[in-house]
Amino acid sequence: MPRYALKIEYHGAPFKGWQRQVDLPTVQGAIEAALARLEPGEHTIAAAGRTDTGVHGLAQVAHCDMACEWSPFRLGEALNYHLKPQPVAITDCALAPPDFHARFSALERRYHFRILSRRAPAVHQAGLVWQIKHPLDVAAMQEAADLLVGKHDFTTFRSTICQAQSPVKTLGRLDVCEVETAAGTEYHFDVRAQSFLHNQVRSFVGSLERVGAGSWSVADMGAALAARDRAACGPVCPPQGLYLAHVSYPVPPFAQA
Amino acid sequence: MPRYALKIEYHGAPFKGWQRQVDLPTVQGAIEAALARLEPGEHTIAAAGRTDTGVHGLAQVAHCDMACEWSPFRLGEALNYHLKPQPVAITDCALAPPDFHARFSALERRYHFRILSRRAPAVHQAGLVWQIKHPLDVAAMQEAADLLVGKHDFTTFRSTICQAQSPVKTLGRLDVCEVETAAGTEYHFDVRAQSFLHNQVRSFVGSLERVGAGSWSVADMGAALAARDRAACGPVCPPQGLYLAHVSYPVPPFAQA
Repeated sequence: MPRYALKIEYHGAPFKGWQRQVDLPTVQGAIEAALARLEPGEHTIAAAGRTDTGVHGLAQVAHCDMACEWSPFRLGEALNYHLKPQPVAITDCALAPPDFHARFSALERRYHFRILSRRAPAVHQAGLVWQIKHPLDVAAMQEAADLLVGKHDFTTFRSTICQAQSPVKTLGRLDVCEVETAAGTEYHFDVRAQSFLHNQVRSFVGSLERVGAGSWSVADMGAALAARDRAACGPVCPPQGLYLAHVSYPVPPFAQA
Repeated sequence: MPRYALKIEYHGAPFKGWQRQVDLPTVQGAIEAALARLEPGEHTIAAAGRTDTGVHGLAQVAHCDMACEWSPFRLGEALNYHLKPQPVAITDCALAPPDFHARFSALERRYHFRILSRRAPAVHQAGLVWQIKHPLDVAAMQEAADLLVGKHDFTTFRSTICQAQSPVKTLGRLDVCEVETAAGTEYHFDVRAQSFLHNQVRSFVGSLERVGAGSWSVADMGAALAARDRAACGPVCPPQGLYLAHVSYPVPPFAQA
């Protein structure tokens, strides 16, 4: 059975997250249903990141096994045809080696988070950003973010229902920047690690926002990390600003990065 | 009666354009209804550009006259409160001189058009761009656009229902550029003039797309302009890529441009 790697973009709003659930709309469920239109029977696909309800995908990666040989181009086009009108699109498709695994082969996941700061309600960005009304101090947020980079016990920044065996992870990067847009000031967070704990990025950004707003000092972030206590976390921020932006593999599965 | 200038952002999709119509949702109607919640009675506002069904506003400008003295900040906030959950936001509000007129005082209107080129259906950009599947030649489009700049009889590029007395207008700028985004290649058109004919920008972009695709030569654009014949226009492109982006006045009504 040939294996294919799929690059997937989706809008998080209508879905109860990535992972298939009985009788609930999920991204995995939508793609597996589209696959069943191409080759009858059960399909189970595996993805690099099991995003939560409301979280967006920019370049999620999954793999599927097919009975027939498909040209990758035709497979992507056929899936997009059957996915319509749901906001899920296969943006790239490639034949993958039999040992390629979208989840277990991944070297690094990259998440992107967008905060829009302005008083007037978001219009074109509604559902695509976390909107706040106050400005944030980027330098302070970056200083606090730097405390999180590296190998740490991230108990403070993981959901109480997180199923990972260990709270110890290595955060590769956490870069904060300010971007002026036609609709107002945005703050972007670029977060990279081999793997993440449940709600880790939203816990980071919710706590960093407190630093940016001046409600927490940079030292408070260090204390929160050191506490290894979920109760020390800032407010977990909402999902609609979060995007799974990129997944890296030892051998890139797609011609275009 | 104090006069206020309003800067307005809106999503075009749910509205039958800017201009008030009986029993149909329009942006003007939505704002006038919100004003009536603040001061009972009839309100009539005037705007710089009467955008069509589906066209977006990034920085539309209108003015309103109020019976009471409002602090501009409170007026903007109160309007946004009553406009919710409609995708219309007052992004700035300022006290204006009694002779300020959002439409007649305007020196220049600036429109922005976005084309997204990629095969997979648009996800996060759905409704915010005109999507095509092929690449475009920016240099050829710019060369053709340059033929349109200046004072011309634009009969070819105006709707047959256009009510302007003369088809002669002076196009100030028409700049084309290519922008790489996370979702694919976009082509942006920046179009400026003191005033526009009905459907002029969408007629320009629809014709320029034909040049970019190689279906028209640059000379074909010159011939279309010279024909002064609506039948010589390329396909009028859809509204969801079009944004009223800026309006200039002799004295800027808002503290921030």
